[in-house]
Amino acid sequence: MRTRALSALTRAPALLAIALPFAAAPGGAQGAAAASEAESAAIAATAAELRDRALADGRSYELVRSLTVEVGPRFAGTPGDRAGVEWALRKMRELGLANVRAEPVTVPRWVRGEERGEIVAPWPQKMVLTALGGSVGTPEEGVEAAVVEVASLEALEALPDDAVAGKIVFFNRRMERRKDGSDYRPTVRPRGAGPAAAAKKGAVAMLLRSVGTGTHRFPHTGATRYDKEVPRIPAAALAVPDADVLEAQLASGEEVRFRLYLGSRYLADTRSSNVIGEVPGRERPEEIVLLGAHLDSWDLGTGAIDDGAGCATMLTVAALLRELPRAPRRTVRVVLFANEEFGLSGARAYAEAHADELERHHLAMESDFGAGRVWRFATAIDPAALPEAEKIAAVLAPLGIEHQGNTAFGGADLIPLREARVPKADLTQDGTYYFDFHHTDDDTLDKIDPQALAQNLAAYAVLAYMAAETPVGFGRAPAPESN
Amino acid sequence: MRTRALSALTRAPALLAIALPFAAAPGGAQGAAAASEAESAAIAATAAELRDRALADGRSYELVRSLTVEVGPRFAGTPGDRAGVEWALRKMRELGLANVRAEPVTVPRWVRGEERGEIVAPWPQKMVLTALGGSVGTPEEGVEAAVVEVASLEALEALPDDAVAGKIVFFNRRMERRKDGSDYRPTVRPRGAGPAAAAKKGAVAMLLRSVGTGTHRFPHTGATRYDKEVPRIPAAALAVPDADVLEAQLASGEEVRFRLYLGSRYLADTRSSNVIGEVPGRERPEEIVLLGAHLDSWDLGTGAIDDGAGCATMLTVAALLRELPRAPRRTVRVVLFANEEFGLSGARAYAEAHADELERHHLAMESDFGAGRVWRFATAIDPAALPEAEKIAAVLAPLGIEHQGNTAFGGADLIPLREARVPKADLTQDGTYYFDFHHTDDDTLDKIDPQALAQNLAAYAVLAYMAAETPVGFGRAPAPESN
Repeated sequence: MRTRALSALTRAPALLAIALPFAAAPGGAQGAAAASEAESAAIAATAAELRDRALADGRSYELVRSLTVEVGPRFAGTPGDRAGVEWALRKMRELGLANVRAEPVTVPRWVRGEERGEIVAPWPQKMVLTALGGSVGTPEEGVEAAVVEVASLEALEALPDDAVAGKIVFFNRRMERRKDGSDYRPTVRPRGAGPAAAAKKGAVAMLLRSVGTGTHRFPHTGATRYDKEVPRIPAAALAVPDADVLEAQLASGEEVRFRLYLGSRYLADTRSSNVIGEVPGRERPEEIVLLGAHLDSWDLGTGAIDDGAGCATMLTVAALLRELPRAPRRTVRVVLFANEEFGLSGARAYAEAHADELERHHLAMESDFGAGRVWRFATAIDPAALPEAEKIAAVLAPLGIEHQGNTAFGGADLIPLREARVPKADLTQDGTYYFDFHHTDDDTLDKIDPQALAQNLAAYAVLAYMAAETPVGFGRAPAPESN
Repeated sequence: MRTRALSALTRAPALLAIALPFAAAPGGAQGAAAASEAESAAIAATAAELRDRALADGRSYELVRSLTVEVGPRFAGTPGDRAGVEWALRKMRELGLANVRAEPVTVPRWVRGEERGEIVAPWPQKMVLTALGGSVGTPEEGVEAAVVEVASLEALEALPDDAVAGKIVFFNRRMERRKDGSDYRPTVRPRGAGPAAAAKKGAVAMLLRSVGTGTHRFPHTGATRYDKEVPRIPAAALAVPDADVLEAQLASGEEVRFRLYLGSRYLADTRSSNVIGEVPGRERPEEIVLLGAHLDSWDLGTGAIDDGAGCATMLTVAALLRELPRAPRRTVRVVLFANEEFGLSGARAYAEAHADELERHHLAMESDFGAGRVWRFATAIDPAALPEAEKIAAVLAPLGIEHQGNTAFGGADLIPLREARVPKADLTQDGTYYFDFHHTDDDTLDKIDPQALAQNLAAYAVLAYMAAETPVGFGRAPAPESN
């Protein structure tokens, strides 16, 4: 319902965008105008200066250093989460942002607890593993059962129930290393859907080969979910070398028995905050360019690449824009979302609290794919405004960034903005090594290359500035079906 | 005393080595002869064939795979250690070695227990750490104190006692990555000597930046030791990223307080075994070419590169020699030592049990530096026998191995053979990445490149065969002063 109503409201102005002369553009979300050649050239020149200044700006690295040293892990609802919110408010004020505030978000509170596992037979060996986020704990004495290995949800589905009942299901699919991380989506499916699918066939627990590239001995956590119709069974991820050992023992043909203990449990829901700060627009302050990242992290690492890097980048972009001799035309709003990792709580709260102004969101972007160099730019804006994307792409090109087209996906925290068809843009990072560290103990500061982080800063500064400054409106994002 | 007596016994024959005609050579350790050119050429040809066959032989990789999958960690005195001994006896028999036996070794039994640590102030954060081997535990409530940072034992020594008393000493020296691993020795010193040095000044605990290269979040364990004159204080290694955080918090100038809990403790001494098997010599069976590696590992990883790779290589070398149409002239003896890691128990037991035949040890070598490609060959033999080393070097050269000279160090398990001046040889591996994994959870099978392991096999097969086959005796190793 809401989707259709908003679409009707917002599609029309976009079609008018290039027809309206600049001088006639109103200040509201409906405003759009063509840019004169001279104006476009001036905007591009300022953007290029910003870009080159950003490449030499060490502040984003210093911010992520500060966040990882002085706060560390920031899992939803923990003391670290609260410290992260305080840190973000303080840094936004230090950077001179306006309207700095914490907007309340209710978050679930899940505790990992003690966790251990071992192969009991045929060849006993301790395993390195970690609970999936949201997993129930095992009974006090743990769970011990024979292991049945499957490659996928479909392979599990194809097994007769009596091949699974009373056993521990082991999902064993390797994730491929790719620059765009595109093997994540197919590989991660059993992490979410596995426990319910296994329980449906009577399994007593679930093990997962960590959804990650690389072979260092870190288990990769990540959220799982249950189905109300079937029992909730404990679920854990094995580090890749441990999955290799389990696989090899299974390959012997002997029955492999596994013992799992998880002390994980839920506590009462608690509070966190989205932390927001702005550079108010000079001409159309009610129109918003949203720079998103998420402030929370998993509990294992210090959340340097996921998503300290994104937070640091967006904070520094805002600082760079604030320092311009005159503010950009529209308001640039940094939103550091609460609890992306364990349920998008902050993103949902933002979409709800700001429902009335979503139609005035000119563009939204999120940095949440590590700290590798940006190599690709895409938009999801009204096609009529694509000449503006071309102008942005031209200033990004010297950073080694190619222009993909109007195919942007948006970060996870932008999902609740889809209904409102908020225009969005992606600056895709090189994710070749991202999934070596993702959701592990090993997501720490040293995994960030300061030069690559500065390149990110430059790219986002260009995009944020040019989007906020252009007189041309971006209309609404193409309908989800075609995105 | 013993050194001098053995030296007197063994130096003289070495000097005679090139003077005795081959036909007159007796079978004993005193035997030495020149090799005819034809004979040398035949030996080199057989060695080259062995080398090329070894490069295509996957058995050493299969052995280390089997050891890590079917046994796993093999820390002294544990069930894994016992399983390792059974595994080694079984594999030696399967490979057709002769005189397969387990020789008893008394080993200490230390248990790691639970371990945790955190920075308490100014910015609380959990730390990834592990007890140093042999550390005492903390009191039940843990130890909490301010941290004092030092770069070295000398820097600690230079501090006034009252700057250290009641505090936790943090040794913070980075190890450099080098192909030959030569920064290990200077960096590792506080691991052994630190607790006593810190306790002498009144410290209540010791922390160490892990002695390792790389930045993955694994703490590196390793043996420490105490001094009877001062209190035994708990000692732990921080993972490199955690040492970075501690260093950064200390750099703020604020007092940094740390809380450490270690549940480590000693149990009663127990039994392990050196596992020994042979390819009996055809002409001088009483002369021994010793192929050493250590069967034990630390408790954290599965001991793939330290020292499963060495065990697998030496077992397979023996298999290759046994499969020759005729056995080499001398006996080739594989010794898989017990408890190298935590006190050289097996090496000392071997030297004691075999004291009478050490003078008949023609050459000893140990593989205990990972699974990287061999790039350097060195000996420590009587200089008169060096033309034989040149012949070996010529067959090794096509493997990309350079000849360093008569400067071999020998592995740690060969240290107890030094008094007897047992000749030795080194095939130095590329250790560029060895200390990324050394003594961590992450020492697992996937860290081994099968091609590099096969190159090791080829190199050791050449060296073992040519040393066992040459009619020329190697005398005694140069005196320790010049080694």
